Amino acid sequence: MILMELADAVLQGNRLALARLLTQVENDTPEGRLALDSLYAHTGKAHLIGVTGAPGTGKSSLVNQLARAYRNPPEGYAPQRVGIVAVDPSSPFTGGAILGDRVRMRDLAGDPGVFIRSMATRGSLGGLAAATASMVLALDAAGYEVVLIETVGAGQAEVDIARLAHTTLVIEAPGLGDEIQAIKAGILEIADLLVVNKADRPGVENTERALRGMLQLAHPTHRPGGLHHGFAITERASLEPGEVALETPAWEPPVLRTVATEGTGVVELYREIARHRQHLESSGEWARRERTRLQSELEVLLQATLVTRWKGAYGSPEVVQEVVERMLRRELSPWQAVTALLDGFIE
Amino acid sequence: MILMELADAVLQGNRLALARLLTQVENDTPEGRLALDSLYAHTGKAHLIGVTGAPGTGKSSLVNQLARAYRNPPEGYAPQRVGIVAVDPSSPFTGGAILGDRVRMRDLAGDPGVFIRSMATRGSLGGLAAATASMVLALDAAGYEVVLIETVGAGQAEVDIARLAHTTLVIEAPGLGDEIQAIKAGILEIADLLVVNKADRPGVENTERALRGMLQLAHPTHRPGGLHHGFAITERASLEPGEVALETPAWEPPVLRTVATEGTGVVELYREIARHRQHLESSGEWARRERTRLQSELEVLLQATLVTRWKGAYGSPEVVQEVVERMLRRELSPWQAVTALLDGFIE
Repeated sequence: MILMELADAVLQGNRLALARLLTQVENDTPEGRLALDSLYAHTGKAHLIGVTGAPGTGKSSLVNQLARAYRNPPEGYAPQRVGIVAVDPSSPFTGGAILGDRVRMRDLAGDPGVFIRSMATRGSLGGLAAATASMVLALDAAGYEVVLIETVGAGQAEVDIARLAHTTLVIEAPGLGDEIQAIKAGILEIADLLVVNKADRPGVENTERALRGMLQLAHPTHRPGGLHHGFAITERASLEPGEVALETPAWEPPVLRTVATEGTGVVELYREIARHRQHLESSGEWARRERTRLQSELEVLLQATLVTRWKGAYGSPEVVQEVVERMLRRELSPWQAVTALLDGFIE
Repeated sequence: MILMELADAVLQGNRLALARLLTQVENDTPEGRLALDSLYAHTGKAHLIGVTGAPGTGKSSLVNQLARAYRNPPEGYAPQRVGIVAVDPSSPFTGGAILGDRVRMRDLAGDPGVFIRSMATRGSLGGLAAATASMVLALDAAGYEVVLIETVGAGQAEVDIARLAHTTLVIEAPGLGDEIQAIKAGILEIADLLVVNKADRPGVENTERALRGMLQLAHPTHRPGGLHHGFAITERASLEPGEVALETPAWEPPVLRTVATEGTGVVELYREIARHRQHLESSGEWARRERTRLQSELEVLLQATLVTRWKGAYGSPEVVQEVVERMLRRELSPWQAVTALLDGFIE
């Protein structure tokens, strides 16, 4: 299959072609890049939904239930095609990811409107976010109207991946301990919706109360940074006295309860996600997030490409090795080493 | 205080100067870099010990207990000065980190042989690992003979930070659920010692059994990559038939039990860490890890510096913005955008 054919086949809905493309993309091959380049004009339509949360919260079950809901929506909504990208940055090996696929397969197998792909971590810094972004582009081009991006854990990787999403769900579960609650404070900053899954367990009220308390802390009157925030309060200063601001009300992240294993609360979650999408569009936030996402994608690619090109042109392994030897002898500090390597290359 | 004075004061053991330097380093100021450059010749002496594990495992208590053990060691060992760098990559805010400092302070306050510093995440990719590396250098130069680097979570950030350490401890606790165990498989790859903390809780045998099982999986006959591995099996192929290999036995990560809140098992942990250090030195692995660490530090700095310099010289915000606009109109794919930006700059 030559490459234009691959891209064409993906556009025509050929699942095998899509699977091949995703493998090319995951391995970051020149072929994969070329195919993505030609598919890029067909992207920008999918609703990207990030789903993150600590291990043990039942994220995967909830993602499966959401996928089912998009296939068989509540009355008044049209069925949509769903792509799922499950990212596991904790594992340098694909073992867990492959296992995850198999478990899912049983549940959603045979539905041509669902495409599931797992990926493990990439070796390089930023590689995971870049590879995930490319896979999401491919699914978008292939006509999946909703792409669920599932990540495990609570680290920087999750925050980077959440930057890909239009809507970010943070999943909690009762009884995971106070320390987990505490470290979630950072993750809450990126949450558009909070879900207490396993809500049939004891302690659900405490978890919910803790989340609401942390929401207060995380989103007081305005949210810093402005990257992932639904607030439309931007031009208050320009209002005349007495003038009424015609602005979209700020988005307040709702806290929802679900029991994914039984499907409880999934329809409500579906509706809240739909409501968030509507909010994004009416507030202009959808376009703002698109821009932020593309900017950060460009940044990551630029960084990786600069290093690759510099190495190709100037930074031969021997030159770098010599500098490392001098660092080992404590003759050059890391910064002095970088300065030595880049000297004369670019000021 | 001018800068050479700052570096000199740090070398003379002035704690206030060290605190100021660490702030400069965390904010990545030119002053901080210059001071580190002049301190670099005094580094390379500290034993860097990474301590990582999921939330709820009691890492911080264990780190405190270890710090006490280094101050009041078992018979036959000399007291050592201890630096602690607590990294919380999950929080974009310092709230948690500051709180952590206060709790620790009560425990170790007033001991001039202990220096504790917390840091939250840096915005940029790779920024956290780079900033941590620099802080560790500063503590090393200031004469802290042991530096404990504590990280929360189980993501790429932990793996990157573990690359800084000579010895990596992975902390578990009973009853954190099967899923946590599963995602730990990746982290186990970097473990030199495994600790089941909270070992007075029910389920400790199960946790231990699970860890040993995963160790089997993670370290079968050799470990891939060779970055963090205590194995000295490198030149087997060159042995003549019948020749006996004079090599250090491979390091098999021990599994230890502790109850940090009561100090149980801490002396054994101390001894095992000492044994690992001895192993590193006798096998030549200490030098290998030093080299790997400096290489990866150089790589991260190089990447960041290339981007900064390119932006300074060519990538004005207006130029980048124009490219992002074209990406938004789907005229340029991310790769095409990077190519356009770097065109003519470096092939």
